[in-house]
Amino acid sequence: MTSMTGAVKTHTEYLFFHNKKRREIVLLTPQLEQIVARSEVRDGFCFVSAMHITAAIYVNDLENGLIADIQEWLEELAPARPNYRHHQTGEDNADAHLKALLLHHEVTLPITDGRLDLGTWQQIFYAEFDGQRRKRVIVKIMGVS
Amino acid sequence: MTSMTGAVKTHTEYLFFHNKKRREIVLLTPQLEQIVARSEVRDGFCFVSAMHITAAIYVNDLENGLIADIQEWLEELAPARPNYRHHQTGEDNADAHLKALLLHHEVTLPITDGRLDLGTWQQIFYAEFDGQRRKRVIVKIMGVS
Amino acid sequence: MTSMTGAVKTHTEYLFFHNKKRREIVLLTPQLEQIVARSEVRDGFCFVSAMHITAAIYVNDLENGLIADIQEWLEELAPARPNYRHHQTGEDNADAHLKALLLHHEVTLPITDGRLDLGTWQQIFYAEFDGQRRKRVIVKIMGVS
Repeated sequence: MTSMTGAVKTHTEYLFFHNKKRREIVLLTPQLEQIVARSEVRDGFCFVSAMHITAAIYVNDLENGLIADIQEWLEELAPARPNYRHHQTGEDNADAHLKALLLHHEVTLPITDGRLDLGTWQQIFYAEFDGQRRKRVIVKIMGVS
Repeated sequence: MTSMTGAVKTHTEYLFFHNKKRREIVLLTPQLEQIVARSEVRDGFCFVSAMHITAAIYVNDLENGLIADIQEWLEELAPARPNYRHHQTGEDNADAHLKALLLHHEVTLPITDGRLDLGTWQQIFYAEFDGQRRKRVIVKIMGVS
Repeated sequence: MTSMTGAVKTHTEYLFFHNKKRREIVLLTPQLEQIVARSEVRDGFCFVSAMHITAAIYVNDLENGLIADIQEWLEELAPARPNYRHHQTGEDNADAHLKALLLHHEVTLPITDGRLDLGTWQQIFYAEFDGQRRKRVIVKIMGVS
């Protein structure tokens, strides 16, 4: 059990993506660890959120087989198909919205002793479902420095 | 990259709903923007959470075709049907619990420069799956003012 | 509408689990209420996150029929089966990863007046999908004391 008291500090950065493929999963953990170090927050939260509605942030395993399993599973549960109503607007990416809803677009990560306080196998990923354009992720840290 | 330091401020409000229909999706963004302004928090988080287990809060597109797609998709993945075990208690809303779990009941939104720091197309919605009764949503803001 | 201003306080504890069964759902609410009391935080957030990628934290009903419905539903949407690619590594738990993604591994809970500010029926659960080993959950509280 540990406690800290003091002034609160916030620290905000944005990550930019421009993936060549429509769907892609990008590891974020090393970049996030650097942002946490720059923030000088010793205890608090690191919030990571896609600023788009066709991309997700999730925490799971850095294992290529499982990453492929996750993508196939998303395709089963939220398949790309022509006949979504959203496509009457001229869009063709309704499945990307549903996949993003399923994985969720944001995570909160704990910071303890100035570092992300993650389990051994927890890695943070950006999941792009409608790439080939510029996308943004906000990282906002708040805590005691 | 921006940082702020100071005293922390919290601000809490509750939203009330009494939807006439069993299922309904309600846009929250304008109300949330007003609460953020009233909080006078310049940098921090705006947490929005349904206080019920048959309603969700989600972030996605304000486009009626997509909203209909999301509702049909939820019905496919978490269908209303008579034979849930939960219905042995006299309830008939097990599907509403499952739909709420799928979309998740809470979101955290970043606040930067005194405003919700959202992407162009990000809108916040309250998703009711078992309405026709009084429901509550908590909005709790924390940050530097 | 309530507001508070002051120094920020953080408080961190870890919960440990070693479930005998592979799948199990464990009620966390009483333990979390004790941690919130020990934290002496009067207004803020209580963040609860599994530190593993085959377990989830979720908020819903303490009703055994519904808990069984949730488990069956997870099995339908993320079935245990031999032919996941992840199993080529020697693992056999790909479905546990998918079930954890579906329910999400973390929740944020509001604290008001020194207590978890939950709706009448909201209970917090740890959902184990690959037990029979030691697992950890982090509880990190931040707010005004």
